[in-house]
Amino acid sequence: MQFSFPSILKHILKQTARSLHSSTMALSRFEYVKQFEQEEKLLPNSWIVVRIDGKGFHRFCNVHSFSKPNDLDALQLMNLAGMTVLQEFNEIAIGYGQSDEYSFVFRREASVYQRRRDKLVSYVASLFTSAYMFHWKRIFDGRSIAMRYPPSFDARAVLYPTDENLRDYLSWRQADVHVNNLYNTTFWNLVASGLSNSDAEKRLQGTLASDKNEILFSQFGINYNNEPIIYRKGTILLPKSVVSSEGKKQRLIVPIFEDLISDAFWAKHPEILDKKAKTDELYDLGENEAQPVVQYQLEMQERRKAGMNKSESGNRLLATDHS
Amino acid sequence: MQFSFPSILKHILKQTARSLHSSTMALSRFEYVKQFEQEEKLLPNSWIVVRIDGKGFHRFCNVHSFSKPNDLDALQLMNLAGMTVLQEFNEIAIGYGQSDEYSFVFRREASVYQRRRDKLVSYVASLFTSAYMFHWKRIFDGRSIAMRYPPSFDARAVLYPTDENLRDYLSWRQADVHVNNLYNTTFWNLVASGLSNSDAEKRLQGTLASDKNEILFSQFGINYNNEPIIYRKGTILLPKSVVSSEGKKQRLIVPIFEDLISDAFWAKHPEILDKKAKTDELYDLGENEAQPVVQYQLEMQERRKAGMNKSESGNRLLATDHS
Amino acid sequence: MQFSFPSILKHILKQTARSLHSSTMALSRFEYVKQFEQEEKLLPNSWIVVRIDGKGFHRFCNVHSFSKPNDLDALQLMNLAGMTVLQEFNEIAIGYGQSDEYSFVFRREASVYQRRRDKLVSYVASLFTSAYMFHWKRIFDGRSIAMRYPPSFDARAVLYPTDENLRDYLSWRQADVHVNNLYNTTFWNLVASGLSNSDAEKRLQGTLASDKNEILFSQFGINYNNEPIIYRKGTILLPKSVVSSEGKKQRLIVPIFEDLISDAFWAKHPEILDKKAKTDELYDLGENEAQPVVQYQLEMQERRKAGMNKSESGNRLLATDHS
Amino acid sequence: MQFSFPSILKHILKQTARSLHSSTMALSRFEYVKQFEQEEKLLPNSWIVVRIDGKGFHRFCNVHSFSKPNDLDALQLMNLAGMTVLQEFNEIAIGYGQSDEYSFVFRREASVYQRRRDKLVSYVASLFTSAYMFHWKRIFDGRSIAMRYPPSFDARAVLYPTDENLRDYLSWRQADVHVNNLYNTTFWNLVASGLSNSDAEKRLQGTLASDKNEILFSQFGINYNNEPIIYRKGTILLPKSVVSSEGKKQRLIVPIFEDLISDAFWAKHPEILDKKAKTDELYDLGENEAQPVVQYQLEMQERRKAGMNKSESGNRLLATDHS
Repeated sequence: MQFSFPSILKHILKQTARSLHSSTMALSRFEYVKQFEQEEKLLPNSWIVVRIDGKGFHRFCNVHSFSKPNDLDALQLMNLAGMTVLQEFNEIAIGYGQSDEYSFVFRREASVYQRRRDKLVSYVASLFTSAYMFHWKRIFDGRSIAMRYPPSFDARAVLYPTDENLRDYLSWRQADVHVNNLYNTTFWNLVASGLSNSDAEKRLQGTLASDKNEILFSQFGINYNNEPIIYRKGTILLPKSVVSSEGKKQRLIVPIFEDLISDAFWAKHPEILDKKAKTDELYDLGENEAQPVVQYQLEMQERRKAGMNKSESGNRLLATDHS
Repeated sequence: MQFSFPSILKHILKQTARSLHSSTMALSRFEYVKQFEQEEKLLPNSWIVVRIDGKGFHRFCNVHSFSKPNDLDALQLMNLAGMTVLQEFNEIAIGYGQSDEYSFVFRREASVYQRRRDKLVSYVASLFTSAYMFHWKRIFDGRSIAMRYPPSFDARAVLYPTDENLRDYLSWRQADVHVNNLYNTTFWNLVASGLSNSDAEKRLQGTLASDKNEILFSQFGINYNNEPIIYRKGTILLPKSVVSSEGKKQRLIVPIFEDLISDAFWAKHPEILDKKAKTDELYDLGENEAQPVVQYQLEMQERRKAGMNKSESGNRLLATDHS
Repeated sequence: MQFSFPSILKHILKQTARSLHSSTMALSRFEYVKQFEQEEKLLPNSWIVVRIDGKGFHRFCNVHSFSKPNDLDALQLMNLAGMTVLQEFNEIAIGYGQSDEYSFVFRREASVYQRRRDKLVSYVASLFTSAYMFHWKRIFDGRSIAMRYPPSFDARAVLYPTDENLRDYLSWRQADVHVNNLYNTTFWNLVASGLSNSDAEKRLQGTLASDKNEILFSQFGINYNNEPIIYRKGTILLPKSVVSSEGKKQRLIVPIFEDLISDAFWAKHPEILDKKAKTDELYDLGENEAQPVVQYQLEMQERRKAGMNKSESGNRLLATDHS
Repeated sequence: MQFSFPSILKHILKQTARSLHSSTMALSRFEYVKQFEQEEKLLPNSWIVVRIDGKGFHRFCNVHSFSKPNDLDALQLMNLAGMTVLQEFNEIAIGYGQSDEYSFVFRREASVYQRRRDKLVSYVASLFTSAYMFHWKRIFDGRSIAMRYPPSFDARAVLYPTDENLRDYLSWRQADVHVNNLYNTTFWNLVASGLSNSDAEKRLQGTLASDKNEILFSQFGINYNNEPIIYRKGTILLPKSVVSSEGKKQRLIVPIFEDLISDAFWAKHPEILDKKAKTDELYDLGENEAQPVVQYQLEMQERRKAGMNKSESGNRLLATDHS
C-alpha cells in the first residue's frame, strides 16, 4: 500500500525547486554528480557502537615518552577526549576506553544525523581527535611534554541488534584489556629486570594467565590484582546526576572503574540499557571526584558561574556547546 | 569455477588458529561479536572522493573573528591541513579546497586500507582535524587569535566511475565557490555600506550573477574579476616536481589557483587523470612560492638539512612521516 | 587484538594458490574481475524478512480471469508456492501470504548462504516462481485455465532487530490485507450492482471502515466479518507436528487463518519467536486438513509410501528434496 | 550548497500526508516498520552485470537425463530464457550464457527500477526461471522429457566501472567455458571408453590444455576445435536489426557464437559499448536463423500477423509485453 501526494502539491514543489535553482544555473550542469553519493543509514532500533582507534600509536607513545606498560596521564587524556564526545551526543548510553581505543554506544533509538554512517563515523573521529589535542596541555604541561606531531584516529561503526550482543561487545573489550595488560605488565617488568625485549617475549610464549600472575608475584613481588584498576579494567564513562563535595546537584559525565562483564554492573546502572530507568538517583562520585574528567567539568562550571570572563570563555564554549 | 585449498592446509591453519587463541581463552566467549562488523569496501577501479566539511563553522568563524566574506589566513590554514592529507597518502591525485570544505581524490587503483569505507572516511577526517589544529599557531599567532574551542569536520566518500564524472564533480565544487563567493562578496559589501543583514538579503533576492557584478561595480567600484583568485576559484593541491628559488629540485605539494572546469587545466596537468603521464617535468612555482603551503614545506626541509635539532623535530616529524 | 598467521603458513598458502592456478592460466588474466563482487551479508542475530511481490499481477489476474476481489484458487496457488519455500528452508520461522505477496521470516540465527543478500533474495524469488508455475495445473486444471504467459515476482530482504519489530511487521501486512480487502469487497459489490468503476471509486472516497461495513450490510446484506477468513486475514504458514485423520504423526507445513496482531496468537505458537519452545506438542489441523497445502503434502507422503512409481516421482522430488 | 523548501510547503505536505493516512488508521501503528527497508541503489554510470546461476543443476541434469558433457537442448532452453530477459529489458546491452549460468549486462545509464539492487537481482532471477519453465515443453517435448521438479536459479549483481573491466568480465566467463568444456569433453570421453569416474579424474589431474587436446586427438580422434562452437564459446545474445529469409526487416534478439575476448568482436558490434553506435546496419543471421531463439521470435511474429487467435495469444503475450 502506497500513497502519493496529490499532483497539485507535486507541481508546486517542482516549481519551487525550479525557481530556487534559477539563481544557480551555473551549478546545474554539474550538479548531477550529487547522485553518486550513497548515504548508508544504519539499521533502526539497533545499538550503534562507534569505536575509535589510535593510528600508529606505538610510535606516538615512543616519541612522546609515554610510560610503559601504562601511562596514567595518557589514559586520562583519552578520557577527557571521550568525555567531550559524550557531552556532544546525548544519545550515547555509555562510553568505554582502554589503551588507545574508545567505544561510544549510541542508543537503539538514536537519530543522530539520521543514522548516516559516513557522517557519524567521521565526525566522532574528528571530534575525539580535536578534543585530544585541545586537552593535551592540561594533561602534559606538568611533565613538559610538547606535542611533536598531531595524533590521529580512525573509527568504525558496528550494529548490535540485542542488549545481550551489546553487553558481549563491551565484555569483549574489557576482556581484551585484561589479557593485554597482564601480558604487558609482565613483559615490561621482565624487561626492567634486564631481559631484552625478545627474551621477554620468549619467556612469555605459551604462558597462561596463571603463569604470568606467578611470574609477577614470585619474581617481582607484584600482586596483579592490586595494580591500578584503570589499567586492569579500562574506563567506563556514564552520564550521571551527582552531588559534588560542595553539595551541588548536577549532571556530569562520570568515569567509573568496574567490572562490566558481571550482571551486577548492569543492575547497578539500569539506565544504560533502559532509557526510561530512573536516573534521578544520585550517583556517589566517591574518590572518583578527583579524576581529571570530573575536575575539568567542575572547573568549567565554576568559570561559568563566575561570569563570562573572556580569557576563560574558550573552555566554557567547549564544555557547554557542541551544536 | 572455484578452488579450495587442500584440506591438509586447512587443517594446519585451524590448528594454528586454535593454539594462538588458547592464550586468550578469556576472550573467546565474547569474540563472536566481531562478526557484526561489516566492512564495506569501495568499488575497485573507481575514483574515490573523500570530502571533509566543517561542522558548525558559521559559529566557529564568528567566535574566532574570521573576516567576511573571506579570511585569507583561515583559507591558508585549510590549505596546510589539506597539504598534510596529501603528504600522508601518495594515492591522492588532487586535492581541492574552498570555504570550510576540502575534497581529496584517491586514484582509481588506490589500495589504501583495502578501500575500507569506514577507515578511510574517519581517518581522513581525523587527520585533517589534527593538522588544522597543529598548524593553527603558525597561521594565527600573528593576529593573536587563540583557539577558543576545537573545530571538527565530518567526511563522506563518493565513488566516480569515469574521468568525466570526476571532472564534473570538481567543476561542481568550483562552480559552487563562484556562486557563493559572488553572493557573499556583494552581501558583505552591502552590509558594510550600512544595510542590515536582512535588507542586504532582500536586495539580492532573485538577482542574477550579472546583477551582482553590476552592484559591486556601480556601488562599490569593485570589478569582481579582480578579486583574489583564491576567493573566486578555491585552492587546488597537486604533488609536483619543482625547483625552488634556491635551485634545488624536489617534490612538493603545490597550491594552484586556476579554472579547473576548462579542458586547458587537464591538458596542463595530465598526471591527475593518468598516473603514467610524465611528471618529471618541472613545475614553475612562480609567485606561489610565497604561499604558506610551499613555505612550510621548504622550511621543514631546511630544518631537516640543518640536522636533528630537538626543538625542531616536532614539525619535522609532521612533515616527513605519516606512516 | 589481532592475530596474524605465522608467515610460514602464509607462504605455503600462497604457493598452493599459485600452483592450483597454473592449470588455468587462461583464466588468470581476467580473474581479477571477481574482486568487483561485493557480497553484502545481512546483520547477524536479526530477523530477516524476505518478501516477494507479484510483478504486474493486475494484468496477470485479468488475463487469467481471476475472480474479483478474491480468487480462492489463486490464493491457494500462492500458498502452495509458499509451502515449497518453507519446505526448502528449515530456518524459516513463519510464512505469511496475502494478495500477490508472501513474506518469509528467517530466524535470527539463520545461516542460510552465510546470510548473503543477493543469493537469498534472488533464490527465494526464483524458487517461489518455479513452485507457482509447477503447481498451476493442480490448481487450475479444474477450471481449464491455461497459463498464457509466465508470472514473475520480485523480492526484497528487510532486517528486524527485535521480536517486537518483527511482530509489528507481520501486523502491518495483516492490517494491510484488512484495509484493502474491505475496500475491494465493497468496491466490487458496488460495481456488481451496476456502478461504473469510477463511480464506485467516488462513492468510497473518504469513507471510513465503518462506512464500508455499513454499505456492505445495508446495500448488499453482507456482514463483512462473515467473509471467508482467508480473504480477511491472509494465510499464515507454520511447520507443525500434526496427526492426520488417519492417525499418523508427522511434520507438515500448516496453513493457519488467525489474527496475528493479538498476543493470543504468539502465546499459542511460541516456537515462532523462540526456537527452543516445545514444538512436539501436536497441532490439531481441524478443518484445515482440507486445505490444498495439507492435501498436497499428505498425497506426496502417500506416494512415497506406495513406492517409487516413476510417473509419480516428479512430485515426490519436489516435496522432499530441495537441496 | 543546499536548498530547503519553504516551510509553508513543508507544512502543507505534512497536513496532506496526515489526512491521507487518516483513512488507514489501522495501518499507521505498524507502518513504521517500513523504515527498516534499506534500498541500496547501484552506483550510477557503471555497468551492471546480473549473473544467474542454476541451483543444484548437477542433480537437475541427472534427474532429467541431460547428455554429458553438453546437452544441446538444455543449452537452447537456457538461451530461450535468456532471450526472454533481453526482451523484457531494453537496457541490456549484451547477454552471455554458458553451462547453467547466464550474464545480463545492463548499460551504464540503465535506470531500471532506479537501479535498486534487491528488485533487479530478484526480478531477473524470477523472470529467467519462469521463462525456463515456460519454454520447457517447446524444447523437450520431442524427447518426451517431463519436468520432474521445478528448477531454480540465484542471481547476483556486480558493478564494473570501465568498458575494459566489463570486457574482461565477459572474457573471464568465456575463458571459463573453454577450460571447463575441454576438461569435461576429455573426461566424459575417457569415461565412455571404460574408465571409472575417479580413474578419469586421476588421469586428468595436473594435465595442461595441450595434454587434453592430445588425449582427445590420439585416443578418440577428436579435434577439439571442431567441437560445436556453442559448447566451446557459449552463447552471446544481442539485439540486432535483421532481415529474415523472407526479406522482412525487423529487430530480434540474436544468438551469436564468437570469440568475444578478441578486439575483433567489439569492433564488429560497436553498439554494445556505445549506445549511440549505428545499429541500423543489418545483421546477417546466416545459419543462425535456424537457432531456436530466432525461430521462436519469427514464429511469434507470424502468429501476431495472423491475428489474435486465442489459443496462440499466450505466447504472443510472452513475446511482446513484459511490462
